[in-house]
Amino acid sequence: MSTNEKIPYKIYLSEEEMPKEWYNVRADMKNKPAPLVNPGTGKPMTAEELSGVFCKELVDQELDDDTKNIPIPEEIFNFYKMYRPSPLVRAYCLEEKLQTPAKIYYKFEGNNTSGSHKLNSAIAQAYYAKKQGLKGVTTETGAGQWGTALSMACSYLDLDCVVYMVKVSYEQKPFRREVMRTYGASVTPSPSDTTEVGKKILAEHPGTTGSLGCAISEAVEYAVTHEGYRYVLGSVLNQVLLHQSVIGLEAKKACEKYGIEPDVIIGCAGGGSNLGGLISPFMGEKLRGEKDYRFIAVEPASCPSFTRGKFAYDFCDTGQICPLAKMYTLGSGFIPSASHAGGLRFHGMSPVLSQLYHDGMMDAVAVEQTAVFEAAERFARVEGILPAPESSHAIKVAIDEALKCKETGEEKTILFGLTGTGYFDMVAYEKFHNGEMSDYVPTDEDLKPGFDSLPDL
Amino acid sequence: MSTNEKIPYKIYLSEEEMPKEWYNVRADMKNKPAPLVNPGTGKPMTAEELSGVFCKELVDQELDDDTKNIPIPEEIFNFYKMYRPSPLVRAYCLEEKLQTPAKIYYKFEGNNTSGSHKLNSAIAQAYYAKKQGLKGVTTETGAGQWGTALSMACSYLDLDCVVYMVKVSYEQKPFRREVMRTYGASVTPSPSDTTEVGKKILAEHPGTTGSLGCAISEAVEYAVTHEGYRYVLGSVLNQVLLHQSVIGLEAKKACEKYGIEPDVIIGCAGGGSNLGGLISPFMGEKLRGEKDYRFIAVEPASCPSFTRGKFAYDFCDTGQICPLAKMYTLGSGFIPSASHAGGLRFHGMSPVLSQLYHDGMMDAVAVEQTAVFEAAERFARVEGILPAPESSHAIKVAIDEALKCKETGEEKTILFGLTGTGYFDMVAYEKFHNGEMSDYVPTDEDLKPGFDSLPDL
Repeated sequence: MSTNEKIPYKIYLSEEEMPKEWYNVRADMKNKPAPLVNPGTGKPMTAEELSGVFCKELVDQELDDDTKNIPIPEEIFNFYKMYRPSPLVRAYCLEEKLQTPAKIYYKFEGNNTSGSHKLNSAIAQAYYAKKQGLKGVTTETGAGQWGTALSMACSYLDLDCVVYMVKVSYEQKPFRREVMRTYGASVTPSPSDTTEVGKKILAEHPGTTGSLGCAISEAVEYAVTHEGYRYVLGSVLNQVLLHQSVIGLEAKKACEKYGIEPDVIIGCAGGGSNLGGLISPFMGEKLRGEKDYRFIAVEPASCPSFTRGKFAYDFCDTGQICPLAKMYTLGSGFIPSASHAGGLRFHGMSPVLSQLYHDGMMDAVAVEQTAVFEAAERFARVEGILPAPESSHAIKVAIDEALKCKETGEEKTILFGLTGTGYFDMVAYEKFHNGEMSDYVPTDEDLKPGFDSLPDL
Repeated sequence: MSTNEKIPYKIYLSEEEMPKEWYNVRADMKNKPAPLVNPGTGKPMTAEELSGVFCKELVDQELDDDTKNIPIPEEIFNFYKMYRPSPLVRAYCLEEKLQTPAKIYYKFEGNNTSGSHKLNSAIAQAYYAKKQGLKGVTTETGAGQWGTALSMACSYLDLDCVVYMVKVSYEQKPFRREVMRTYGASVTPSPSDTTEVGKKILAEHPGTTGSLGCAISEAVEYAVTHEGYRYVLGSVLNQVLLHQSVIGLEAKKACEKYGIEPDVIIGCAGGGSNLGGLISPFMGEKLRGEKDYRFIAVEPASCPSFTRGKFAYDFCDTGQICPLAKMYTLGSGFIPSASHAGGLRFHGMSPVLSQLYHDGMMDAVAVEQTAVFEAAERFARVEGILPAPESSHAIKVAIDEALKCKETGEEKTILFGLTGTGYFDMVAYEKFHNGEMSDYVPTDEDLKPGFDSLPDL
């Protein structure tokens, strides 16, 4: 098929067409992502060391740089069928509103109660924990999507779910807590006094609104100090990108079915779970020299890991108790401004994406939040979906790209990831409507404490 | 197809399979619903009288008892394609959890930002208003789903949208207002002092938490006192059931495609928009003597129009300024208890459904809200969707029916309407989790003021 007229508004694959295997982009990377390193020894973490924190099979996936396709267990596949395949949507209405010759598509991951793509990895991680006979899992959540996703997965599998939620989100999103509670999770605002590391951070930074880095430290501490618990993480890790590859695999299959050839692929980037998942199979083609695509990572100007961070070994958590990862980072000592709405608050970035960015395989841009909410509202009014602030970073740049096409007359095909819905972000929307939203761009001085916190390696 | 194994978790029709015409169940009814009556003259409302309140083409649809199939205008069809077809879901996980031999299906209408089926009629009504060259429309909203839906439709068509929101919902759902604002609507809690009727109700019932009946009065008053505005309504009316027939038409086509033959069809009933839309095409078959189905309307025990109301001419609004409709009603003077969560607060019921119920074509049951929330949470934990309280009334009875099958061993096929999601109902869920939810069943004494308010006709 090649004529636009025949492309439906929403492309749904059938269940038979859903991917049966995850795709591991590391297998196609010549320069592998650097291994996690033990901060005590300075040496790569062994599987045994990692298995104190993570489930065994997830450790295997974390360390596997070679297996290209990893089968999706049947139980996970069946869970996927409850809310997947997700639609690939042709943004006909947005195109018309923008009067652009560009063709705009988005892969919409918001049609499930977690409201985002996070469920794709949550069910996988919960499944392996259950299979290992664990009692429960601990985690952190920022915007609340990951925590909700994990609660849903744990509830489904009868696993205990302990969530540390970044304080600013806990306060801005009171109802998120109630959704997690519906799914039986316990939720604590972070930093808290329930952990040693939380107490330490509170003492050093009284009044802090928290960060993903803090919450990770607390969740890890809980896991390693409680029998039968392991820690799970919703982003950054290689295993997460692996699970999230279902997004890209579905998108790619839908494109192929209708002869759609994206020129530009855009995703928002906090820790990289969505971006990595969406682009992986396309990146594979690029790495193998089969096709070329332009990839754009979009990050908030207030937390600019790619565009202003350093490519260095760093702690994933503020408490500096986790292994070190080599990534683009602002330093684990960086705490994003409270004026920053929602997710994408992590100081670092997926090591896989960091390596790819370092190798020139993708671009990155940073955008300010007022412009992001303008794009969000514009999108909502014509496409009918109220987007999450995180997702709206990608919308903003997709619109920018489409408007460039309007100027040049190019008929580019733009694909972006619409990771989720903004139903729990109405406090931020209200601020935007009331003109109370500010744009924060850290000065070099603001970034200094973060960079100073980088370990010597 | 006849084996269960082949039925996917979610059945999506293709765009080509989507209905091109609405189905008007009145055409197949031997006993037509009684006409709307002018309270001044006691005579049926003429098209001319109605056109002061409603758009012209909607008046035609309201009065048309004979045309069986009415084409869906292309603009509306294209809007439908943004969020339809909605999936028919096989509740495999719920079936397994219940260990029932019953097969359970639900038609899920929550995958759009309004969070419910209300968008199906909102876009139709907004379209005809736009076509007539109006400036804007006014309406009431209870749980907020209809108001959100109308805001979305108006924003899409560049129409002004004035919403009166039942006060208790306005207070319990602060974020709903913000969603409507994102779509450019103005929202006022009802009763308010912006209308004469609102002032009168406030004077007579100070401290009232409002009702749909009040809000309707205010919205109608605004429309008839402002040039270029008409009133639109999200339920009760014949035209609304007509537009909502897309739900049943899609469900029926999906069933036919996979050889699914429902024995029982269940829907929640407030004013009847979802129930009427879901059952219409199936009811048509029953009316024509082609097939038999058991239909069950589920209403809250706190607002029991079908099960304890009278079949009589009554005002649709508390202010008694609207035409009279013959329906099952608790009387326009009935104001539901504040302890009642969310929607389904209307004192009356669709005249079409009222006539069908009166003729013994369907059953009705009333359920208490704590049991409804228990069913909601049970459903959420296995099916992954957090349901709206309204929809959960249907879930409760679907589970009851499935458990009956477990006892008898019958392999019934149960179809219910899952009208929407509960993302904006977390205050009610929180009450439920905290054990603060009470069940209110009005005594006969409680119902007396409502019945006393019935007009003599």
